[in-house]
Amino acid sequence: MRAEFVNPFLASLMNVLKTMASMDLKPQKPRIKKDEIARGDVSGLIGMVAPQSKGSMSITFDEQLALQIMQNMLGERPNSINEEVTDMVGEITNMVTGGAKRILSESGFEFSMATPMVVSGKGHTITHKCDGAIIIMPFTSEWGNAFIEICFEQQRLETRDLYGLPNNVK
Amino acid sequence: MRAEFVNPFLASLMNVLKTMASMDLKPQKPRIKKDEIARGDVSGLIGMVAPQSKGSMSITFDEQLALQIMQNMLGERPNSINEEVTDMVGEITNMVTGGAKRILSESGFEFSMATPMVVSGKGHTITHKCDGAIIIMPFTSEWGNAFIEICFEQQRLETRDLYGLPNNVK
Repeated sequence: MRAEFVNPFLASLMNVLKTMASMDLKPQKPRIKKDEIARGDVSGLIGMVAPQSKGSMSITFDEQLALQIMQNMLGERPNSINEEVTDMVGEITNMVTGGAKRILSESGFEFSMATPMVVSGKGHTITHKCDGAIIIMPFTSEWGNAFIEICFEQQRLETRDLYGLPNNVK
Repeated sequence: MRAEFVNPFLASLMNVLKTMASMDLKPQKPRIKKDEIARGDVSGLIGMVAPQSKGSMSITFDEQLALQIMQNMLGERPNSINEEVTDMVGEITNMVTGGAKRILSESGFEFSMATPMVVSGKGHTITHKCDGAIIIMPFTSEWGNAFIEICFEQQRLETRDLYGLPNNVK
């Protein structure tokens, strides 16, 4: 995975939370995920497809951080992860990916987004099953932590690419 | 979501588990997911992108069922969900989606798959955030239950589609 793919997602999450929830997360240094396990309570996940690459991205929040984002955005704080919270996490996932897509498009890397999914469950973990380095970006706040995890892999070139035929996403 | 999208995923999961693990799951009737909450312990999730549609699919297993599939496939049964189990669930997710893709391609519906992700965590739930009906397909077995959930949405037609320009996935 190319390193320049990472910063647009980091910048986009910071921007979305600043704009929507007046919240400043503190980004830690992005790193390649090895044995590290990132646990969280609610996560947004999305698949991405490019002409010669595909991948996936997840954003995982501690419950208290997700509830605080709700409170900052809507002025109401649910007692636990409910459907409004999972809707918000799905929306954040779409906005962060859409923001990164616009930035990456300016450097000539285009990809299509699938629809987001949201996982809810105390202390769950996510593994991106992707032939490529998984980058993990931790964020801290006074309400808890968040993590972005992202992976892109190169697809095998297919015969039609080699012969110069139209290179639609297959 | 078109109903004919559902059966290829159902048939493909049955076929993968029969072939790889000599296991016969009992499929229940597919239905539109309303208030129902499907909990499980390990899930494979994948995003899908088509020229004018996008969506997501998940397969969720009870822990004991996932461990039994491992035992049938590899002759060894881990005590709990470990990396070998999440690798297997990611692989099943890829195979089921790839099988459905081949069947749907024969009816003229082409889509591209993102890379799979696997969630591990006792009793987690998944919500597909997709503008369209979510279809849930429950499966039972003597070791526990599995669920496929799937959603496809139609994308807004873009100007270039209306003017007949090449309709690449954007």
